[in-house]
Formats: sequence, C-alpha cells, structure tokens
Amino acid sequence: MKKIVIVGLGLIGGSLALALKGFEDYKVVGVARRQATVDYALSHGVGDEATLNVTAALREADVTFLCINPEDIVAFMREHRSHFKPGSLVTDVCGIKGAIMEASRALPPEVDFVGSHPMAGTEFSGIEHALTDMFRGAHYIITPREDSRPENVALLARMADYLGCRDVVNTTPAEHDAIIAYTSQMMHIIAVSVCDDESLFTCKGYEGSSFRGCTRVAALDVDLWTQLFSLNAPALTVCLDALLGHLKAYRDVIAAGDEQRLKKMLAWSSDRKRQMDLPGPDLLS
Amino acid sequence: MKKIVIVGLGLIGGSLALALKGFEDYKVVGVARRQATVDYALSHGVGDEATLNVTAALREADVTFLCINPEDIVAFMREHRSHFKPGSLVTDVCGIKGAIMEASRALPPEVDFVGSHPMAGTEFSGIEHALTDMFRGAHYIITPREDSRPENVALLARMADYLGCRDVVNTTPAEHDAIIAYTSQMMHIIAVSVCDDESLFTCKGYEGSSFRGCTRVAALDVDLWTQLFSLNAPALTVCLDALLGHLKAYRDVIAAGDEQRLKKMLAWSSDRKRQMDLPGPDLLS
Repeated sequence: MKKIVIVGLGLIGGSLALALKGFEDYKVVGVARRQATVDYALSHGVGDEATLNVTAALREADVTFLCINPEDIVAFMREHRSHFKPGSLVTDVCGIKGAIMEASRALPPEVDFVGSHPMAGTEFSGIEHALTDMFRGAHYIITPREDSRPENVALLARMADYLGCRDVVNTTPAEHDAIIAYTSQMMHIIAVSVCDDESLFTCKGYEGSSFRGCTRVAALDVDLWTQLFSLNAPALTVCLDALLGHLKAYRDVIAAGDEQRLKKMLAWSSDRKRQMDLPGPDLLS
Repeated sequence: MKKIVIVGLGLIGGSLALALKGFEDYKVVGVARRQATVDYALSHGVGDEATLNVTAALREADVTFLCINPEDIVAFMREHRSHFKPGSLVTDVCGIKGAIMEASRALPPEVDFVGSHPMAGTEFSGIEHALTDMFRGAHYIITPREDSRPENVALLARMADYLGCRDVVNTTPAEHDAIIAYTSQMMHIIAVSVCDDESLFTCKGYEGSSFRGCTRVAALDVDLWTQLFSLNAPALTVCLDALLGHLKAYRDVIAAGDEQRLKKMLAWSSDRKRQMDLPGPDLLS
C-alpha cells in the first residue's frame, strides 16, 4: 500500500487524517511531536497509524502533508530535505502560499511540491476537535510549481473530492495571498477588533447570529495567526486600509444624520452582497 | 378564543405567525397590506387567519405584535390609537427601543405596551422566507414600561418560551439601544463595509466560513436598516469610533512588522473572546 504521511496532528492535520482514511490504496500515517497525541490518534482512529518517528515516516511517504505552522513548514523542509522519498509529493495546508512556495525550493529536485490551502477550520485547536466533515463544502486551493507534475495535481484533486470539498481552485501564490488577505485574514482582524470593545462582556444576552458569525474566529490560535499576518503584512495592510475607509464613510454619514445618503450607500453595498450569490446560508439561528 | 394579531407578515411577522400557532388558547391573526400576502399566509398556514382589515383585527386583539419598520410603528400607534382593544397588550419586534417606547405614549392609558426584540433573523425578507424555527435559541429582549402590567410581562415570557427562545432579557430602552448598537448594528455596518471592497467579486472560490459569517447580513433590508441606524446614530457612532481605533491599532502593528507586539495583542483579544463563552458554534463549514 502507498502511504500518505500527515505531519502535525492538530485541528487540520487530525481532520485530514480522519477524512483521508480509505482514500484509494493509501494508508494514512500521522506524525506527532507528543506521545499523548500519538496515543489519542491511535485510540480514536485518527489515521491508520501514528508515530513520533518523523524521519522513518517521511522515507516511506508517497504523499506528505505538512500540517504545522508556516514558519515550522519552512524550517521542516530545510531540515528534512534529504528524508523525503524520491518521486514523492509534498504539500501543506496553510493559509499563506508565497513564503511556503519560496521555501519549497529547499527540497531536492526529485521531490515535487504543490501548495494546498483547504479553506476550512473552526475556532478550536488540537486533535480532539478534529472532524471528519471539516472539509465538506470547502474550496480546496492549490498553487502548483511551474514544474509540478500533472499527475500530482490530479492526485490532490481526487483527494479534495474524497474530502468532500466543493471544488479545486488553481492559482498562483501571489494571487492566493492577495485574495486571502481579504477573505480570511481581514475577517480575523475584524473579529479580534470587535472583541477589543470594552462592552464585550456586558453584551451577553444581547447577541444574535450576526455577532456570533462575525466574532466566532476571534478565539484564534495566536502563534499561527501571528505568523500568517506577518508573512502577508503588505497585502493585509492594503485590505485593512480599504476597510478603514469604507467603515469611516458609514460612520461619517451616520454621525451626520444624512438619512438619504445612508440609504443610497446601504442600497449599493447590499446589492453587491446579493450579487455575490455565495452558497449558504451557513446558519440561521 | 383570545386573539394574537400580527401586523405585518414579513420575515419576522410571518415567522411569529407560524411559530405562535397553538399557543395556549389564542388564535393567531395576521394582518397584511397586500392581498397577495394574505393569500400566501392562508395557503401556507402562516397564522390561523389573515386579513387586510387592520382596524377590525385590532378591535378584537388581546395581544398585538407590530412587525413593521420602526417609523411605521411610530405612525401606526398614533393613527390607530383608538382602535386597540381596551385592556390589551401591544408589543413590537424591532431592533430599536428608545424611539418606540417614546412613541407608545400615544396609546390610550387602558392599552399596555411592552417593547420586544427577539434577537433573530436571516438576511432574507418577506413571508416566503418565514421559518417556524426562526426564534429557536434566540434571546428575547423586553423593555416594559414602568407601569406595564406584570401579567403582560409574564405572558410575553411564556410566548418566548413557546417560540423556543433561549431566555428573556429584561432591560431599559436606553441600555438596549446602547448594547444593540454594538452587538447588532455594528455587525451590519462591518458586513456592508467589507462588501464595499473592490475585490469582492474576484474573491469567489477563496471564501471560507469566516467570510460568510461576517458578510452574510450585508444583504440587508435597506429601508429597515436605514431607520434602525438613524434612530440610534449617537450610540452607533460611539461603537464605530471604538472599532476604527481597534482596527487601526492592528493595522499599524502589522504594517510596522512588529511581530512580538502583534502576538501580544492577539493573545489579549483572543483570550477575551474565549472568556465570552457564547453558545454555539452556529456553523462549521
């Protein structure tokens, strides 16, 4: 049997290890840094096998998923460059692609790398929050290298399909990072900024689905998101400046009491949203 | 049988008419302005009866729910002050309470008024989007008058329970409006501001649940929200100024590349969110 090795059994790695079980003729092997995580994986069926021995696992991996923090991915590829199996595919799952693709040049030429970013997650961390259905309905974004082998891109597409993803979106690292600054990173900055309000704790009992939907992701993994924001600072700053301008425009028209102008602005913005026609709604309550 | 009259069979009025059917010994009568809405209500079982004749309905109403826009509520109470049944209870469902409670002084002394704001809704409008489960798990906020009869407050609490609401929160109009500016109105301003970004339409395929959760409510009812924002402009402006400050602080530390400071800020904000311990999550995908 061929092997999929998943390095890092956190929320996403653990969910992958659950969801990829039974994929074609692959065995799923999880690699963790702590024995407690290995024990949890073995006792809960997270993957087919679990081990602390990363080097031995890499040598037998036909596909390696790096499910660790961005800076750790960079260091990992450098440190383990000679341990990957020749002819194998290495990929990742992290929310930044420029720095990762750049770092993948450390790999030997006989190892292919295709960047992955399944647009899924929850506000929780750790293997105990892993879900088989984590990727259902999510976009699976890939950033192949120019010389990535077509069969590896096709393999990731079949895996994405097996995970229940909505589609596979093929793009460049630069485009990925520019768009993700807006659709994902900025949502997290908004969420934490809303929670910085001094009335946060007095508002319990007064929150509805709009508040829960906006602030849910504020309970974020601090190390992970510090790295993601820092590695994409220029694009994220551009998005935040645009947001500050749009918010300020609403703030000013509301403060001025210009009801006619406010109505026109709301008509324009809400019409844009309706044109978006995103799948959903995710929630009703 | 006693009668609950629901004036306005839109998203919320229609959902109330569905969800209050069978409540104790009350018959639920919907009042609409258009025959098409009455026909829809009758053919879909939205309420037990439906009519265009508002005056006749009010005269027999033991409880009247005003499920129309805020400015229309103000005008309605003035116009129909002599049509409400003596001894009856009048309430509403709108997201602003100061202006509504003020306007309720137009009612004759033998008619009680208690403000209501069930914290529920979707981004859709109209009776065809009404849901029996709309209020399940939602907070039901009430703002009684100083002289409101205790049995009317108790009646609304039983109705909220029948609707499946999580709890009943009793507060003052001023406190309601100050907190709702933060938990509800600001979420809508954030959503429309995010959708004003020029890259909105190019980001399809790159959005995850954080984006959907934050922007869902941008497809708002323009007339309704213009009124809600305008009637609460001072409190909303205060909230927006605080948000602009918090966002700007994150923007500046990210632009400056100060990773240590960013990490500290994220640790502080995310910890606040975790302390909130809101019920949920509403969504995972």
